[in-house]
Amino acid sequence: MSTEPFSLAKPLARLIEELHRLPGVGPKTAQRLTYYIVRMPSEDARALAEAIIAVKEKTTTCSACFNVTDGDPCAICVDSRREGSQICVVEDPLDVLALERSGAYKGLYHVLHGAISPVNGIGPDRLKIKELVRRLEGASVEEVVLATNPTLEGEATAMYIYRLLQPLRVKVTRLARGLPVGSDLEYTDEITLTRALEGRQEFHG
Amino acid sequence: MSTEPFSLAKPLARLIEELHRLPGVGPKTAQRLTYYIVRMPSEDARALAEAIIAVKEKTTTCSACFNVTDGDPCAICVDSRREGSQICVVEDPLDVLALERSGAYKGLYHVLHGAISPVNGIGPDRLKIKELVRRLEGASVEEVVLATNPTLEGEATAMYIYRLLQPLRVKVTRLARGLPVGSDLEYTDEITLTRALEGRQEFHG
Repeated sequence: MSTEPFSLAKPLARLIEELHRLPGVGPKTAQRLTYYIVRMPSEDARALAEAIIAVKEKTTTCSACFNVTDGDPCAICVDSRREGSQICVVEDPLDVLALERSGAYKGLYHVLHGAISPVNGIGPDRLKIKELVRRLEGASVEEVVLATNPTLEGEATAMYIYRLLQPLRVKVTRLARGLPVGSDLEYTDEITLTRALEGRQEFHG
Repeated sequence: MSTEPFSLAKPLARLIEELHRLPGVGPKTAQRLTYYIVRMPSEDARALAEAIIAVKEKTTTCSACFNVTDGDPCAICVDSRREGSQICVVEDPLDVLALERSGAYKGLYHVLHGAISPVNGIGPDRLKIKELVRRLEGASVEEVVLATNPTLEGEATAMYIYRLLQPLRVKVTRLARGLPVGSDLEYTDEITLTRALEGRQEFHG
C-alpha cells in the first residue's frame, strides 16, 4: 500500500488501509469501498461505523455454548423449544449460522472456536474442549453431533473429542459424508465418492 | 437477509446488514467480515469505525478539479511541480488514482463524477462539465486529455465534451486505444484490434 500516489488525501489512505486489513479485501476492493463510502449519505456511513463499534461492545460469548451472542446465555441456549439433549459441536460461529439456515437441527450447540492444528500451533487447550466435557458432565445430554469441517484438522479434532467423550457414555455421531446435493458424480473427488459408498443407505423407492 | 435464523444476535445481524449494503459484498462475505470484526482487537475495530467517520467528515471535493480531497484546493491542484497547462478529464476519483499510479502524467485533473448515460437518466448537467468549461475559460490550458472510459458512455461523454470545447480552441486529445500490454492478439476482441490498427505507429527498431 506504500505505492499509493503521494497526492492521496490522508483520510482516504487511512480508510483504504483499514479496509485492506479485512480478510478477502484486496487493495483495489479497499479503494472501491473507500470511494463508495465517501459518496454514501453521512447517516449511512455513521450507521456502518456504529454497527462496527456495537458488534464489539454489545456482543460476548455465551458461557454455555461459546457462540457469539448479545445476551448470556444466548438465545439458543435459553430457548425451551430446542432439544436440550442434543449438542452439536462446531468449529466456528459461522457454522452455527449455516446449520440454523438448514432448519434441520433443533438441538443446542457448542462452538470450539477453531480446530486442532499442530502446524498452526493450535492444541486442544486453545479450543473450548474442556468446557464441552464439563458441560456434558453437568447435563443430561444424550447425543453429541460432531460437525467439525470435513478437513484434516476438523477430522483430527472430531477424533480427539470422540476419544475424550468415551468415558462419558454419551452417543457421539457425526455429519454424513457423501455427494453434495446438485453435484455431478463425474466431477466428485475419490475421497468423497469413497465416503459416499461407505455411507450408502438402503433405497426406499 | 430476512432469512437469517431467528437466533442471530441483533448487533451481528445489524453489522451483516450494513456491510451487505456495500458494493460487491454479498451476504456470505458480510457474515464472514462481521465475525472477523467480532474477533478483532477492540482498538482495531474502533480504528476502522473512526476511519469511516473521518472519510466522510474530513474529505470534500476540490473546488477546482472536483477530486476527493482533504484540503481545498487539493494537493494536486496546488502542486507547483505539476504541469498546469494540461488537464486530464476522468469520470471518477478512482481513475485519478490509476493514472497517478502509472506515473506517466504530470498535469492536472478534472473529475466529472460520472459519464453521460441517458439510460440511467444521467445528462451532462449531472456532471462537472460546465465547471470544466468555466475552468478552461479562466486559465491558460493548452491541452485537455479526455480519459473517460473506453465504453459507450465514456465515448459519448468524450464526444460531448470535445464538441463543447471546440470554440475554446484548446488542443483536445484522448488516451490511445490498442492492445493492453501483456495481452494475447489471438484473444483480443475485434473492436480493440480495429482501434489498434487505426492507431498504429511507425516502428523505431
